[in-house]
Amino acid sequence: MADSPNCDLKSLSPLQLFERVTEQGEKVRALKAGKAPKDEIDAAVRTLLSLKLSYKTTTGQDYQAGLPPRDLLLINNGTAKEEDEDFVDPWTVQTSNAKGVDYDKLIVRFGSSKIDTDLINRIERATGQKPHHFLRRGIFFSHRDMDQILNGYENKKSFYLYTGRGPSSQAMHVGHLIPFLFTKWLQEVFNVPLVIQLTDDEKYLWKDLTTEKAYEYAKENAKDIIACGFDINKTFIFSDLDYLGSSTGFYKNILKVQKHVTFNQVKGIFGFTDSDCIGKISFPAVQAAPSFSSSFPQIFNGKENIQCLVPCAIDQDPYFRMTRDVAPRIGQPKPALLHSVFFPALQGAQTKMSASDPNSVIFLTDTPKQIKTKINKHAFSGGRDTIEEHRKYGGNCDVDVSFMYLTFFLEDDDRLEQLKQAYTSGELLTGELKKVLIETLQPLIAAHQERRKQVTDDMVKQFMTPRKLAFDF
Amino acid sequence: MADSPNCDLKSLSPLQLFERVTEQGEKVRALKAGKAPKDEIDAAVRTLLSLKLSYKTTTGQDYQAGLPPRDLLLINNGTAKEEDEDFVDPWTVQTSNAKGVDYDKLIVRFGSSKIDTDLINRIERATGQKPHHFLRRGIFFSHRDMDQILNGYENKKSFYLYTGRGPSSQAMHVGHLIPFLFTKWLQEVFNVPLVIQLTDDEKYLWKDLTTEKAYEYAKENAKDIIACGFDINKTFIFSDLDYLGSSTGFYKNILKVQKHVTFNQVKGIFGFTDSDCIGKISFPAVQAAPSFSSSFPQIFNGKENIQCLVPCAIDQDPYFRMTRDVAPRIGQPKPALLHSVFFPALQGAQTKMSASDPNSVIFLTDTPKQIKTKINKHAFSGGRDTIEEHRKYGGNCDVDVSFMYLTFFLEDDDRLEQLKQAYTSGELLTGELKKVLIETLQPLIAAHQERRKQVTDDMVKQFMTPRKLAFDF
Repeated sequence: MADSPNCDLKSLSPLQLFERVTEQGEKVRALKAGKAPKDEIDAAVRTLLSLKLSYKTTTGQDYQAGLPPRDLLLINNGTAKEEDEDFVDPWTVQTSNAKGVDYDKLIVRFGSSKIDTDLINRIERATGQKPHHFLRRGIFFSHRDMDQILNGYENKKSFYLYTGRGPSSQAMHVGHLIPFLFTKWLQEVFNVPLVIQLTDDEKYLWKDLTTEKAYEYAKENAKDIIACGFDINKTFIFSDLDYLGSSTGFYKNILKVQKHVTFNQVKGIFGFTDSDCIGKISFPAVQAAPSFSSSFPQIFNGKENIQCLVPCAIDQDPYFRMTRDVAPRIGQPKPALLHSVFFPALQGAQTKMSASDPNSVIFLTDTPKQIKTKINKHAFSGGRDTIEEHRKYGGNCDVDVSFMYLTFFLEDDDRLEQLKQAYTSGELLTGELKKVLIETLQPLIAAHQERRKQVTDDMVKQFMTPRKLAFDF
Repeated sequence: MADSPNCDLKSLSPLQLFERVTEQGEKVRALKAGKAPKDEIDAAVRTLLSLKLSYKTTTGQDYQAGLPPRDLLLINNGTAKEEDEDFVDPWTVQTSNAKGVDYDKLIVRFGSSKIDTDLINRIERATGQKPHHFLRRGIFFSHRDMDQILNGYENKKSFYLYTGRGPSSQAMHVGHLIPFLFTKWLQEVFNVPLVIQLTDDEKYLWKDLTTEKAYEYAKENAKDIIACGFDINKTFIFSDLDYLGSSTGFYKNILKVQKHVTFNQVKGIFGFTDSDCIGKISFPAVQAAPSFSSSFPQIFNGKENIQCLVPCAIDQDPYFRMTRDVAPRIGQPKPALLHSVFFPALQGAQTKMSASDPNSVIFLTDTPKQIKTKINKHAFSGGRDTIEEHRKYGGNCDVDVSFMYLTFFLEDDDRLEQLKQAYTSGELLTGELKKVLIETLQPLIAAHQERRKQVTDDMVKQFMTPRKLAFDF
């Protein structure tokens, strides 16, 4: 994937240039870390500087690590170029607003529906269970056709859940848990089958990874997913590299989607270019296909009409807009969706937490001490500059990352409300709020680590074996 | 695939317009055959006429069935536009020369090597067998790296054979036999494993077929292939739809090729456009992957370095040019190739025999009477207009289709030479030459039909089951 950095710089898009600079930066760091000969390091630094210059010439902006060229991405995404527009696609989330992405605007832009009180109440009536705090607090905030799922469910028509993860490294972070925790709740209250896709093929295509490494990450990630407590009799976890080679139903659906989507369409939806490899160009069909029950003949007895519900972060929506567009043309029901907000980076809600920037991340493998240090050192505070000012004017929960994290992980509604009032009034100091978060996350992560230790290779193998689940179709 | 014919005609390329006219022509024929209501037929005819008009406006040429717009195809293929240039790609073969494509020019254009007497002698020495008449007569005329295969073979290094077929219909014709007959000979004299790919997924993508129908055709075609006499212990026949879902090795290699080929590249090689579906765009990797032995772990014990030799018609070379370009970048040996000429249509060597034009074709299912009638009625003659002229000036074997077919099917070199001299001198009349061809083909096809009857569904299943063959790796 990494060509010689100096060839054809002029033909590169700003995003490609951005990626070249990022790659070259990593190369320089690796050379330095590996104590490479000085002239080799110097040459790599010269290349880096010339790449940065090309980037600036092309974009009119200085290169900033982790910040891809915004305007171009907006154009790629088919939305209007606007100064304060948020950017959201499956690879990048970016906003200039410290409160994070404007989700109400995103609903309008994506054409989805807001999860309102009526819908939440209806879920409560249908399941007889108190709605999950992710629903109550607007963490899952948007949907497509959830009413249709409930219509069916109320008429004894079953559906199935489909979610997934791209295994780009061994390390998962707390943000990665959100869709899985919510999916687990959905599975429990609706009592339906669940399929979890690990897109190791995607990671092979996008990253500098071998297929073997990507598959290894998939199996490691499966352990963290299993540690969330999924029922082995109701859940099928699969790696694409593995399952595609063991199911004719899956490949047939991929092919059907691929026949009904043109390059023009994926260019519009995902911003692919003519220089992208044909693997990337055809990959969206691989993420689309598990939305159709015939991809899992062993679970659904070959039935083609079982409706699918996909809980996912909103940045995955482009895949499913495409899938929903294709579905009727290949005689399949459209998948329904439940969209979550992004899990913010420690540094602030302008971007989502990303494993590729270790300072922005609390990993599921972090020790209590690491958790404490990271939160104290990096979690962006909505508090005032001095204690006196804070006491006088109070903190701002809307931009305070520690408070945001508590909305995800502190289940007690009353306690959360108390903290909000105390912080806003200035009664609670930033350090005290951080302490609450640390004390919430430490046992939660420790318990996860404990459960993960119990997950054996054998269990992973069982979860990943194509088989009938505890449901009749 | 077939959109409403009137939308966006202006945005269509000449080739797409050509395809629309062809489709609409088929529709009109089907309506007439099905005795549809008159107004429905009239409407379809009106659409056909307006499509033909658009075609003429766009290309400056009248639409001719079976003759795609040449100039554009030449441009797509990346070769210079030239009045007398032959056009050859995996979907179209076209020349203005009644002798057929100029194969010496094609060798230069494709950058392959001529199969010369030295190479043929070397094959004879290596195998201890008289070279097949397809070699002796220049029917297999071009190669890539065959010397390398022989180097390995002479040093006790084995290789394997890979050929295939796109199962677009139940009916195979005599031309389809050529690569299989030659491959069978190669397998026998070299004693090596053989894999035969049936690209039912390709046919699903390109044609108006369901996956089920394409798979059914694959199994039917497998019967004709098996009837050629392949050894079940040394041969694996597979449908992509089937095998892709039962082999992780195959999908991994497809993915590796897909990662290393860009849209720009397949656009240049195959002439794809932005309006093509992403299935077509990524398909070349599916035809490439069987060139790597790791696609068949059950045969090669997971070994990655077994060299592959692909006997095929020269129009398939673009796939393997691409494969050979990718191979070293994914750590695999380049496949070697043996290229055959095209099997000419009954009407003349300007195009290859194509099942979609029944008058150009002798099917493997034809009765002795059908064979006789087709040859007498349609086989283009190199004879003179009157018996007197023929006796005086003699016939022209270079353009005579009956004589060409005899070079493929009459094994006796002396007899062929006698016929050539007698025809050229005018001693032998066209009707007499046709009679020799009829008497050669009738028993050959009858014997094929007899062998095909012996092929049971169970045998097909065995051939198509992934398994170890009679070789140790």
